[in-house]
Amino acid sequence: MLPLFNEIENEIKAVEQELKNFLQAPDPFITETATHLLNAGGKRLRPAFSLLGGRYGDFDFERVLPLAMALELIHMATLVHDDVVDMSTRRRGVYTVRALWGNRVSTHVGDYLFAKSLILVSQYEDPFISKVLAQTSVKMCEGEILQIVTCYDPGQTVKDYFYRIKRKTALLISASCQLGAVACGASAGVSEPLRRYGYHLGMAFQITDDILDMVADKELLGKPVGSDLRQGILTLPAIYALAHSPQKERLFALISSREQDEEKIQEVIELIKECGGIAFANRVAQKFIARAKRELALLPARPVKKTFELIADFIHARRF
Amino acid sequence: MLPLFNEIENEIKAVEQELKNFLQAPDPFITETATHLLNAGGKRLRPAFSLLGGRYGDFDFERVLPLAMALELIHMATLVHDDVVDMSTRRRGVYTVRALWGNRVSTHVGDYLFAKSLILVSQYEDPFISKVLAQTSVKMCEGEILQIVTCYDPGQTVKDYFYRIKRKTALLISASCQLGAVACGASAGVSEPLRRYGYHLGMAFQITDDILDMVADKELLGKPVGSDLRQGILTLPAIYALAHSPQKERLFALISSREQDEEKIQEVIELIKECGGIAFANRVAQKFIARAKRELALLPARPVKKTFELIADFIHARRF
Repeated sequence: MLPLFNEIENEIKAVEQELKNFLQAPDPFITETATHLLNAGGKRLRPAFSLLGGRYGDFDFERVLPLAMALELIHMATLVHDDVVDMSTRRRGVYTVRALWGNRVSTHVGDYLFAKSLILVSQYEDPFISKVLAQTSVKMCEGEILQIVTCYDPGQTVKDYFYRIKRKTALLISASCQLGAVACGASAGVSEPLRRYGYHLGMAFQITDDILDMVADKELLGKPVGSDLRQGILTLPAIYALAHSPQKERLFALISSREQDEEKIQEVIELIKECGGIAFANRVAQKFIARAKRELALLPARPVKKTFELIADFIHARRF
Repeated sequence: MLPLFNEIENEIKAVEQELKNFLQAPDPFITETATHLLNAGGKRLRPAFSLLGGRYGDFDFERVLPLAMALELIHMATLVHDDVVDMSTRRRGVYTVRALWGNRVSTHVGDYLFAKSLILVSQYEDPFISKVLAQTSVKMCEGEILQIVTCYDPGQTVKDYFYRIKRKTALLISASCQLGAVACGASAGVSEPLRRYGYHLGMAFQITDDILDMVADKELLGKPVGSDLRQGILTLPAIYALAHSPQKERLFALISSREQDEEKIQEVIELIKECGGIAFANRVAQKFIARAKRELALLPARPVKKTFELIADFIHARRF
């Protein structure tokens, strides 16, 4: 767990334990496949944001708990479905649900995790929470589909990229901050700045993720560098380089070729770095962080405000 | 459309049109993939059941509409995900979302259809409808996973089969009948018998489907006979035959071999027919139909009652 979440460590542990209990199914195979990813760990960012957001209302752990669990289930469902690959594509790694049990099981296990989240969400009397999560889920799927559509497309713009990562990542983080407060009875005057904070933070989070995929230490990252490029996913540094590199024709040809060999991937990353693609993406992420902090300034003074500020700094400064 | 649905023909058409509008996305590729299955047609059983069920309350088309659309979206989402296959399995057919656009797109388009249903469901103030659909969706996933787990398993029992098809099919039909009435303000005294009617009807519907997969006219069925066996899915006639055929050892060996060649499939079907597997499954389906009708007897006299009775007879008598 991130050190920033120390103050909610016990709550996060309780969310994990409740999730483990909640995913016990009548059939042992369903339990095994559904808890596989949960047991593999994770940052639990979304539950954490909802628990912290709840502190801007009349904080009550029991009120946030179903939401926090649902947010992690939704996130896990997308991860399991992300691992479903086409026949034409080689495996990305081992130990995914897909690698262990195949595409069909992954698809249905992802569905199962998502459907389980609905049981939790339907416990809230106020339909606002389920409305926001329904809208968010639809947009997340749009982001996922667009990520496939835009693969290997060197013509995509920075705007296309923002449109996609907003859906893929930022909206669920945004909803986590906002709905944690809503679940604890906070007014819109508080939950709306939190929603916007989460949105800007989520954008910075994804941009940082995409930078790390090109520059991070392989050990810290837990996967090889360049995995986005290897899948044909063009992120901000690459899109910048395609427009600004002095060798943009070479870069265009390399990316369009769809070849996956290591030498090509390394050359693409070098070209991106040389023309300042990483530095540009860092500046953009920094701008989103600044916007996130501006939203915090609108919120009343509470101890949790400091935590939200530190998270904003960490999200971008992290090396993994 | 089924002739039995003549009285609601215009309503079904309106549901289809509203669905078409509802699935227009900002990106044309998302619209194309999401409406592909809708445009391919279908029996629209679940919307129809909700519209008919609504007639046991104070029928109001606008009240049932979001539910009817949501039910068809949930059903379509499961169909799209059913078409996601493993690398090791050959394609089942052309013109599925998967065949046209691959596993990854199918997975996310199925998710999209399902997520869109949540927007509709969250329009109901009473969380009862979303609770029932959440529970139903979880159990549907359980059924799908169990169908994969039990593939080629000659040791499964009739009880296992009932457990599976209840989840895979019967519960959503059951919820369609029940929730249509609930959406129109019907009391539990009416919606509960409708729920049970839908359950028994759904069981008979799936058993009949499974029989037709072995005996139907290929042209009427729209797909080759024996497709369940080809995928390793053992249905009621096969499970009966494994226990009662005078050649059960031969049948056991054929099914366990996992071979897919046509001669084997035809021999298995012959062995099942010879020992009365089809006749047995027909008797079981008939029992479920009788139970469904007994539930109707508990309902007050309304013109729609006759339609529900005729549907029960048709569900089992149909040849496609």
